[in-house]
Amino acid sequence: MTKSRLEAFSDGVIAILITIMVLDLKMPEREPAWTWRAVLDTGIVSRLWMYVLSFVYLGIYWNNHHHLLQRTESVSGGILWANLDLLFWLSLFPFATGWWGENHFATVPTAVYGVVLLCAAIEYFVLQWVIVARQGPDSALARALGSDWKGKLSPLLYAAAIGLAFVSRWVALGIYIAVALIWLVPDRRLERGFGA
Amino acid sequence: MTKSRLEAFSDGVIAILITIMVLDLKMPEREPAWTWRAVLDTGIVSRLWMYVLSFVYLGIYWNNHHHLLQRTESVSGGILWANLDLLFWLSLFPFATGWWGENHFATVPTAVYGVVLLCAAIEYFVLQWVIVARQGPDSALARALGSDWKGKLSPLLYAAAIGLAFVSRWVALGIYIAVALIWLVPDRRLERGFGA
Amino acid sequence: MTKSRLEAFSDGVIAILITIMVLDLKMPEREPAWTWRAVLDTGIVSRLWMYVLSFVYLGIYWNNHHHLLQRTESVSGGILWANLDLLFWLSLFPFATGWWGENHFATVPTAVYGVVLLCAAIEYFVLQWVIVARQGPDSALARALGSDWKGKLSPLLYAAAIGLAFVSRWVALGIYIAVALIWLVPDRRLERGFGA
Amino acid sequence: MTKSRLEAFSDGVIAILITIMVLDLKMPEREPAWTWRAVLDTGIVSRLWMYVLSFVYLGIYWNNHHHLLQRTESVSGGILWANLDLLFWLSLFPFATGWWGENHFATVPTAVYGVVLLCAAIEYFVLQWVIVARQGPDSALARALGSDWKGKLSPLLYAAAIGLAFVSRWVALGIYIAVALIWLVPDRRLERGFGA
Repeated sequence: MTKSRLEAFSDGVIAILITIMVLDLKMPEREPAWTWRAVLDTGIVSRLWMYVLSFVYLGIYWNNHHHLLQRTESVSGGILWANLDLLFWLSLFPFATGWWGENHFATVPTAVYGVVLLCAAIEYFVLQWVIVARQGPDSALARALGSDWKGKLSPLLYAAAIGLAFVSRWVALGIYIAVALIWLVPDRRLERGFGA
Repeated sequence: MTKSRLEAFSDGVIAILITIMVLDLKMPEREPAWTWRAVLDTGIVSRLWMYVLSFVYLGIYWNNHHHLLQRTESVSGGILWANLDLLFWLSLFPFATGWWGENHFATVPTAVYGVVLLCAAIEYFVLQWVIVARQGPDSALARALGSDWKGKLSPLLYAAAIGLAFVSRWVALGIYIAVALIWLVPDRRLERGFGA
Repeated sequence: MTKSRLEAFSDGVIAILITIMVLDLKMPEREPAWTWRAVLDTGIVSRLWMYVLSFVYLGIYWNNHHHLLQRTESVSGGILWANLDLLFWLSLFPFATGWWGENHFATVPTAVYGVVLLCAAIEYFVLQWVIVARQGPDSALARALGSDWKGKLSPLLYAAAIGLAFVSRWVALGIYIAVALIWLVPDRRLERGFGA
Repeated sequence: MTKSRLEAFSDGVIAILITIMVLDLKMPEREPAWTWRAVLDTGIVSRLWMYVLSFVYLGIYWNNHHHLLQRTESVSGGILWANLDLLFWLSLFPFATGWWGENHFATVPTAVYGVVLLCAAIEYFVLQWVIVARQGPDSALARALGSDWKGKLSPLLYAAAIGLAFVSRWVALGIYIAVALIWLVPDRRLERGFGA
């Protein structure tokens, strides 16, 4: 029962985060007449794409979190707090996305977006580690995770992107998109390993 | 269990969307004294009606989504992502509604509202298709859906409305209202087909 | 199962409404130094009391809705839509509260607040009526509701308050507070009638 | 079942509160170019730390609320309303945090933050007391709570901090942080007492 409430709370927070980002999608003040050209000049298209990227990232976290908790047998205080840590970093997505969007891919906001991605990835790793530690290295979960190359590679790529943002923010953006694509394939390991 | 978490997450997102639209219902800055006339001059009445329309649309999606998932036996990665796609397009309702409302039925916002409706309808169709594909053409769900004329007609009507918005936005608005009315009758097929 | 999803969705919407009202509690722009006097001059205290009033009203609706659905045996399409109607009117609470608060109990906003209260009360009555109609006049729910004098008296009082707001908004405010106090006693009928 | 809906509603409200605080984390209007120095000048770092503090506090409340309700056997009207009272005070966290953050630890906002902490702590105490009163002084819950020194000490420390804010707001801030650290250790009493 503890677990179901943890899932419900996490779902609630992620559901709110994934939707309040849309509150930043605001058109500038009313013009005498909107034309397609005027719409494009507001930069709404690039903001929409950033929203898509963050939506996909939060969707990935929800998806993987869902699979991870499904394989979790019991919940300890440590798991509760590791989970809250993860939710904290996810909660910065709307802020990072909104600020990035307002500044049309400027360098510092691009790097800050990467910092949020990096910290969230590390926290997810910690949460996973706490759960695996509780269930033992021979547990079904530990075997299903295997080498977890995605989980180990992502933080490295984010860290690289943060540095590369100062060379070219397009490279950083490319890396963020690439990592999202790597994860978009849902965590088949967990599905497959248990025939779910 | 997977299914119940998918339902809970979708409910959470739709519940948030249906309520944050109200955040855009703001009166302009304080006047020395509000009269009924001053209230009408703010255009709040037309914004309220747009809010009603979007509220009804999200209610329809929630309702149909609810019936669809009730007949879904198991959840795959494909269903998870088709569901997230649908939620993404639904999440643009507050943006599209707010922008439309601020511009008093201007042409381009009217068309953009139709684009959001169209994409959401297509994604719902895809979600339904993924679920039916998984359960087989002879499944109870497939039989209950039948010809699904509503699901096929709606995107065509939305597409027509987007084009017609440039002729007369009132025609487009009329089509959006008409489609909502078509759907307001809850999906009796699914209820009837299963005696629910 | 249908019922539990209806409850979950309604809870989600009411939980969001009860919390987003707080987004309107904003202090004006930063001053060089805040003193208690400066705080009082912002009118935050009267806004806080309005927030309390709306919070209590939404709490009452959640509470009564909770008892009502607990006694509901099955959910029909009509109940789903009556419930959405109720949620729609409840969703106007943040708007009505925020506007009222910004205008320090001005006449028209006071009356509009009453209109929202009135419509929500009527919709609750309709929802209750739809559920009772489905379960029959001899059902335990119908007997537990009894004469439902609170449910019948409240709309009359709200209607009176809307008219009286134009004579004195303090009378209207007094009526809103009085009706809340009448309801603050949770619906003992339902609790008692079933030994819950 | 009543209890599960109470938990779900409380979880929903706390999940929303913990995430809408992030809506106040907004960067000022766009500058020609963001540098790290420009970011620091916005005071975003101190606002982030305040957000962290409030996030931790809400996390603590969620965590303890979760343990408390897990040990609650049945729900009465009094518990419902004591719970709503607690949620009301928690709902003022985003307001108090946002205002505090905008004013860079000014004296009056620092004290107001303490008032919200104090009232929430008192309401939690009341909720706990109502539940214990219902289950009897010999119940497992009452024994597990024991002397409840944390619950009794916290309000005293908050009250002290409110007064000390007028001497030095750093002392007040230090006390808020210290109390959070005291609670960060999850309520082992309840976990231990029941082998959960």
